[in-house]
Amino acid sequence: MSESPAVALNHARKARDEVLGELRGFLSIPSVSSNPKGHDDIKRATEWLSERFRALGLTRVEVLPTAGHPAVYGETLSAGPSAPTVLMYGHYDVQSAAPLGDWDSDPYRPVVRGDNLYARGSADNKGQIMACVAAVQAVMRAGSLPVNVKFVIEGEEELGSPSFASLLEEHRDLLTGDFVLNPDAGMLGPETPTIYYGLRGMYVCKLRVYGPSRDLHSGSYGGVVHNPIHALSHMIAGLHDADGRVMLDGFYDRVRELTAEERAEMAALPRDEASYLEQSGVSKLWGEPGFTPVEREGARPAVDVIHILAGSPKSAIPAEANAIVTARLVPDQDPNEVHEGMMKYLKESIPSTVSWEVKSYEGFPASLTDRNTPGVRALSKAMVEVWGKEPLFCRSGGSIAAVGQLQKVLGLDSVLTGFALPDSQMHGPNEKLHLPTWERGIEALVRFLYYLAE
Amino acid sequence: MSESPAVALNHARKARDEVLGELRGFLSIPSVSSNPKGHDDIKRATEWLSERFRALGLTRVEVLPTAGHPAVYGETLSAGPSAPTVLMYGHYDVQSAAPLGDWDSDPYRPVVRGDNLYARGSADNKGQIMACVAAVQAVMRAGSLPVNVKFVIEGEEELGSPSFASLLEEHRDLLTGDFVLNPDAGMLGPETPTIYYGLRGMYVCKLRVYGPSRDLHSGSYGGVVHNPIHALSHMIAGLHDADGRVMLDGFYDRVRELTAEERAEMAALPRDEASYLEQSGVSKLWGEPGFTPVEREGARPAVDVIHILAGSPKSAIPAEANAIVTARLVPDQDPNEVHEGMMKYLKESIPSTVSWEVKSYEGFPASLTDRNTPGVRALSKAMVEVWGKEPLFCRSGGSIAAVGQLQKVLGLDSVLTGFALPDSQMHGPNEKLHLPTWERGIEALVRFLYYLAE
Repeated sequence: MSESPAVALNHARKARDEVLGELRGFLSIPSVSSNPKGHDDIKRATEWLSERFRALGLTRVEVLPTAGHPAVYGETLSAGPSAPTVLMYGHYDVQSAAPLGDWDSDPYRPVVRGDNLYARGSADNKGQIMACVAAVQAVMRAGSLPVNVKFVIEGEEELGSPSFASLLEEHRDLLTGDFVLNPDAGMLGPETPTIYYGLRGMYVCKLRVYGPSRDLHSGSYGGVVHNPIHALSHMIAGLHDADGRVMLDGFYDRVRELTAEERAEMAALPRDEASYLEQSGVSKLWGEPGFTPVEREGARPAVDVIHILAGSPKSAIPAEANAIVTARLVPDQDPNEVHEGMMKYLKESIPSTVSWEVKSYEGFPASLTDRNTPGVRALSKAMVEVWGKEPLFCRSGGSIAAVGQLQKVLGLDSVLTGFALPDSQMHGPNEKLHLPTWERGIEALVRFLYYLAE
Repeated sequence: MSESPAVALNHARKARDEVLGELRGFLSIPSVSSNPKGHDDIKRATEWLSERFRALGLTRVEVLPTAGHPAVYGETLSAGPSAPTVLMYGHYDVQSAAPLGDWDSDPYRPVVRGDNLYARGSADNKGQIMACVAAVQAVMRAGSLPVNVKFVIEGEEELGSPSFASLLEEHRDLLTGDFVLNPDAGMLGPETPTIYYGLRGMYVCKLRVYGPSRDLHSGSYGGVVHNPIHALSHMIAGLHDADGRVMLDGFYDRVRELTAEERAEMAALPRDEASYLEQSGVSKLWGEPGFTPVEREGARPAVDVIHILAGSPKSAIPAEANAIVTARLVPDQDPNEVHEGMMKYLKESIPSTVSWEVKSYEGFPASLTDRNTPGVRALSKAMVEVWGKEPLFCRSGGSIAAVGQLQKVLGLDSVLTGFALPDSQMHGPNEKLHLPTWERGIEALVRFLYYLAE
C-alpha cells in the first residue's frame, strides 16, 4: 500500500464535521421531484451542488437542463487521458416526506440522534453523494487524484429518471468514462459491505375505474349500481393467487431462472427470514412459493398496488376509484410485455358494470452488471481493507432506471453499492443515515480511488 | 273545501320570493355536522333557525343541547288540546361539500340556474324545512292554524342521529304529538307525489388493515411482505359473489320477504330499469339476482364500501389500508347480528399475513310505517289536489335513523315524504332543489294542515 491512502484517510477524518455540516445544509433543501410547486427548491439544490463542486476544485461545473429537472455535472480530469475515468452517479431529488405527522422531527431540519442523522434524503441519496464528494476531496487534499472523476447528479430518480436517457444522448461525449460508480443501492448491514450486481426493473400503471356519472346516495342506489370500489377490489384481489403468485398472463414467461450456483450464493447471504421479519415488522412473510425471501426480493418479479383512493366518509357510491399498480421486474422481463399482460388482465377482470381507463403507464427493464471489472475489483479490495472482510455480492430488489440507461446509451456498467442500511427507511418517515457506516463508506471510497489506478 | 286553504295558498304564493330569500340565507351557513371545526357554523345555523321560528310566531322556541350538536325546537299550540298535534322533523346539518372542485358554483353561495336552486343542503334538508315553515306561515297569515305544530330540527342526521334518541327521551313530554311529518324522504319525480312507508336501516364499520410496521420500500420488500392493500381488496372482493349477492354469513336470514301484493305494487311504480340507468349514468345495473331495481333499492339489503384509502404515489408497501364498509338494512335485520356476520367474515377473509382492527361500528334497523293513518290520508288528499293524481306509496332505499327512534321512544309513526327529486344530487356535488316542485310541495303542505283537522 502506497503512502497516499493513509494521508487521504487522515484528511477524510479531519473533514468529518465539515462534511457533515455541509450535508445538513444540502438536506435542508426539500428537493422533492414529484412536487409540482417545488421548482425553487430544485433550483436551490442544483445551485448548492454546483457551488459545492466548484469549492471541491472541479474544473468544469454545469447545470445540464432536461425536459424535466436539470442534472448537475462536475469533472476533474487532472489525472490525464491515460488514467481511468469514473463517472459518479447520484440524485439530488428526494421522495415526498408526507405525511409529516409520521416523522419524529422535521424531515428538512436534519438532526443527529444517537448514531444516526435523520432527514429526508439522508440515506437516499444526498448522504451518498456527499460520501463521494468527501472521498474525492480527501484524495485531492492529500495530493492529486490518481483517476479522472466526473459527477452526474440527476434530479428525477424518484420519478423513474424520465429525462436521463435523453440527457445521456445529448451529452454523450461529456459523459464518457470507463464505468459508473452508483452509491444508491445500499448495503445489507453495518458489518456487511455489499456490491450489487442486479437491480429489478419497474412498471407503473395508473388506473381509474368509473362507476356512476356522479357520486350517488348509497341509500338510493346501494344494491342497484355496481360500486367501482368493489370492481377495483375484485381486480386487485385477482392479481395474485392465494399463494402469492402473480396471475398476469405471461408474467413469468421471460423470467430468467436462477442457476443452482446463484441460489447457493443467495442462500449464503446474511439475509434470512428472521432478518426480513425484524426489519419489516410483520409476523409472517408472504410471496411466491418455492423461493426464499432473498430470491423473491432480488430475482423474482413482484406486483404491488401502492395506492388506492376512492370515496369518502359520506354515504355515497363514488363515481370513480383509483389505484396505482406497480411491478418490480427481473431479467428478461420486458415492461411493454408486462403492460400487455396487464391490459389483458384488466379487460378480463374488471366487470362490464363499470368502465375503466389506464391514465398512464411507464417502465424500464431490470439490469444485471458484470461482477468481474476493474471497478468492482477496486471497490472490493477497498471494502476488505475497511471492514476486514470480503463484500457480499447480491441482487437488489430496488430499481434504478439510470443503471439500464447508462448501459444502453453509453455502454457503461455500474458498480452498485452504497452505505445506507436496510432500516434506513428510504421513502418512509424518519429516514436516517447511520453515521459510523457512512464514515467507513467514505474511507472505502478513498481507497477505491487509489486502487482504481493500480 | 273550506275557504281557508285558498286564502292561505294565496299567502304562500305571495311569500314565495321572501321565503326563497330566507332559504338562501339558511343555505349560506356551512353547517356540516361531520366537520370537527364547524362548531361556529352549527351555532349560526341554530341561531338562524331559532330567529326564524320566533319570526314565524312560534310561542316556545328553544335550542335543545345534546351530547353532540343541539336541536332546535319550536311550537305553536294555539289550536288547543282537542286538535291534532303534528311534529315536524328536519335536520339543519348537511353533508360535506368536498371536493369543492366538482361543483359548478360555490356550495354555500346559493344560486338559481333555470328551475333549480343550487347549494349544499338545498334538497337535503334545508329546502324541505323551509317548505314546512312556509306552509305554516301561510296558514297563520290566513287566520289561525287548525292544528298544533311542533318543529324538531336536529343537527346530526348526516352522522346517523347519534344523540337524537337521548334527546327524545329527555324531552319526552315536550315532544309528544299525534304523528311526525318527515319531509326528508324525497319524491320519485316532479309529476309523482310520493309517500314513503319504509326506510332501510344502516350499518357502518370502519376497518383498518395493518401490514408492515412502517411504509416499506416496495423494491426491497415487494414479493416478500404481504401488502395490506391486497389483503383489504381480497376482503372487499369477497363481500359479494359474482352475481351481486352479499356473502356475509346469515345476512339474508332475517330479511322479510316481499308479498306478491307488495311486488305487484312495486312493479307498478314509475321506476324502471331505464330510469335508474338514466339517473345514475351507468350503462348496466347491478345487484342481487331475482329482484327488480325497485325491490333491490327499497326491500333488499345492500353492502357498499364507501371509502378506501391506502398508500401514496411513493413506491412503498403501506403500513396500513383503510376502508369504511356500510350496509343498508331492511326489516327484520338486526344491526348487531349484521355486525356479528361482518366480524366472522373479516376473521375468515383477511389473511393471517396482515392484522386488522375494526376502529368503530354503529347502526340502526330499518323501519316500516303504517300507511293507514290520519296523517297519511291528509297528505294523500292534499297531493291529489295539487298534482291531480294519487301519490305513490313506496319504500325508500335511504336511511333516516330518527324515524326508528321516534317510533321506539315516543311511539310516533312518521309520514315520510319530501319534495327533493331523485336527481337532486343529495350528498354529491351540485346539489339542487327543483323550485317548481318545491312550490307545489308548499301548497301540498298548506292543504295538509287543513285536511289534518277535518
